[in-house]
Amino acid sequence: MKIAIIAATGMAGRAVYKEAIDRGHDVTAFVRNRKKAIKLLGAGKFVKKSIYQIAAINLTEFDVVINAFADHENPINNLDALAHLIRIGRGLKTRFVFILGAASLKRKDDRLLYDVMSQLPNNESWIKEPRYGVDELYLLQHDDERLNWTAVSPQQEFVDGPKSSYMTGRDSLLYAADGKSHVTSGNIATAILNEVEEPRFLGQRFTIGDK
Amino acid sequence: MKIAIIAATGMAGRAVYKEAIDRGHDVTAFVRNRKKAIKLLGAGKFVKKSIYQIAAINLTEFDVVINAFADHENPINNLDALAHLIRIGRGLKTRFVFILGAASLKRKDDRLLYDVMSQLPNNESWIKEPRYGVDELYLLQHDDERLNWTAVSPQQEFVDGPKSSYMTGRDSLLYAADGKSHVTSGNIATAILNEVEEPRFLGQRFTIGDK
Repeated sequence: MKIAIIAATGMAGRAVYKEAIDRGHDVTAFVRNRKKAIKLLGAGKFVKKSIYQIAAINLTEFDVVINAFADHENPINNLDALAHLIRIGRGLKTRFVFILGAASLKRKDDRLLYDVMSQLPNNESWIKEPRYGVDELYLLQHDDERLNWTAVSPQQEFVDGPKSSYMTGRDSLLYAADGKSHVTSGNIATAILNEVEEPRFLGQRFTIGDK
Repeated sequence: MKIAIIAATGMAGRAVYKEAIDRGHDVTAFVRNRKKAIKLLGAGKFVKKSIYQIAAINLTEFDVVINAFADHENPINNLDALAHLIRIGRGLKTRFVFILGAASLKRKDDRLLYDVMSQLPNNESWIKEPRYGVDELYLLQHDDERLNWTAVSPQQEFVDGPKSSYMTGRDSLLYAADGKSHVTSGNIATAILNEVEEPRFLGQRFTIGDK
């Protein structure tokens, strides 16, 4: 398949890129810094564009666009970038896979993780990223305007690591054998490529956790 | 003041344009069709740009940008356009005034107008516009990223008509002397220009109704 990856040099993007290449897909990476991309990913098909420079015409050739963009310093950019991609993606045959955060998932006690986070003291320095992640899912779920989308949430701990075995869920955190909510970048990448090849969650969000 | 009006040829835009000109402001209109603009507004300062073609650099010179854009046929464009303006407007000194819909206001019985609308039968053909209007307010109210904004809601009936006397409120529909919720384009324009000249609702939504 023809797959585009946005922000392929980040933690999630690198893992998804590698998995897609390993499976023999025709992969193009949208990157801001070509040198950095070559250093991190090796030789490949790179298009130098920031996310807001990407227009519909740049995406029509792809079967799937995977958005791995995540701005931890200015997390409002995550919401803005999603809104931009939603707008340009409407009416395209291209399918979009958005990697969101975990805060929009429910905990064992049925409380939204974000709601718990938002009540913690001294959260000013980090609460915006989960907050805008919740808003991203809201935008997607409120949108039924011809956008072909799937969203993916990781777990509370989303760490760089190899693939092992994973499980999927819908709207609740997943707890691994050690009782904790975590997922590696390798497992996220494997699950996303499986979803790309055999869609199960069209127009839906699902979550991936280590077993 | 230097004022830009987006979509100055629509019902609300025309009234706001006229009021701003009458008060002696330096007004620029962003329009898609220059001939139509001249026909409807007379000679003036027009910039031919669709809303998505407007970039931050096109707005920095203005004290205030008033967005009167409303797409009744494809109302998702109202939400997309708002998201676009929010993104490019962040960090600018320019103040933004967004004209939203009335569905995000509460009725006398304390129910959100949209909630009542959404339960009416056979609403498929028109429910999206109020729905995305509610989402527009949600986006603005969730956004505290250096955007200088004020939003304006009209009333249940928003009709072309001259200025008379008006009242303002916050989050509830306003009922005129005849017991109905309505506002003219002339009153909306007057109230918006009053707000532009003497800000009372920075970072807030307010509503305007005929007395």
